[in-house]
Amino acid sequence: MEEIVGILAGVFTTIAVLPQIIKAIKTKKVKDVSPLMFVILCIGVGLWTVYGVIKWDLPIILTNGISFILNAIMLSIVLTQNKDD
Amino acid sequence: MEEIVGILAGVFTTIAVLPQIIKAIKTKKVKDVSPLMFVILCIGVGLWTVYGVIKWDLPIILTNGISFILNAIMLSIVLTQNKDD
Repeated sequence: MEEIVGILAGVFTTIAVLPQIIKAIKTKKVKDVSPLMFVILCIGVGLWTVYGVIKWDLPIILTNGISFILNAIMLSIVLTQNKDD
Repeated sequence: MEEIVGILAGVFTTIAVLPQIIKAIKTKKVKDVSPLMFVILCIGVGLWTVYGVIKWDLPIILTNGISFILNAIMLSIVLTQNKDD
C-alpha cells in the first residue's frame, strides 16, 4: 500500500513540470513565469539527488535526477525567452 | 552530513513556489503559467503527505504538507486570474 502511494507521489511530482514546458514551447511566452522558482527547484531536486547518492537509494536518485533535468530544461526556456523579449 | 543535505533539499523544494506566488500577486498576470502543473504538483505532494502519514514520518508530512498549501494557493491564484481575463 505505502509503496504504491510512494511510487504514484514520485511520478506526479516528477512529471508536474511537463505541462509547463509544453505550454512554454507552444506559446513561446514565459513572461509571467518566475525563473527563480525553477532555480530553487533545480537546487532542491539536485540536493535530493545528492542525498540519494549518499544513501544509495535508487528511487530517490532516479525521480529527482529526472526532475532536475526537466526543471533545468524549463529554466533554460525561461532564461532564453526572457532574453529575446 | 546526509541529514544536512536532506534538510536543505526539503527546504529548497518546499519554498520554490514562493517567488512564483509573489510574482503573480505583484504583476496580477499568470497567463503564461500552466494551471495543470500546479494541479499535478498538488496531487503529488498530497500523495507524499499521505505516504508520510502511513509511515508516520514527520519530516515528510511537514515539508509536503506545507508544499501542498503553497501550491494550492498558487493554483487558486492561476484559476481566479485566468477567469478574470
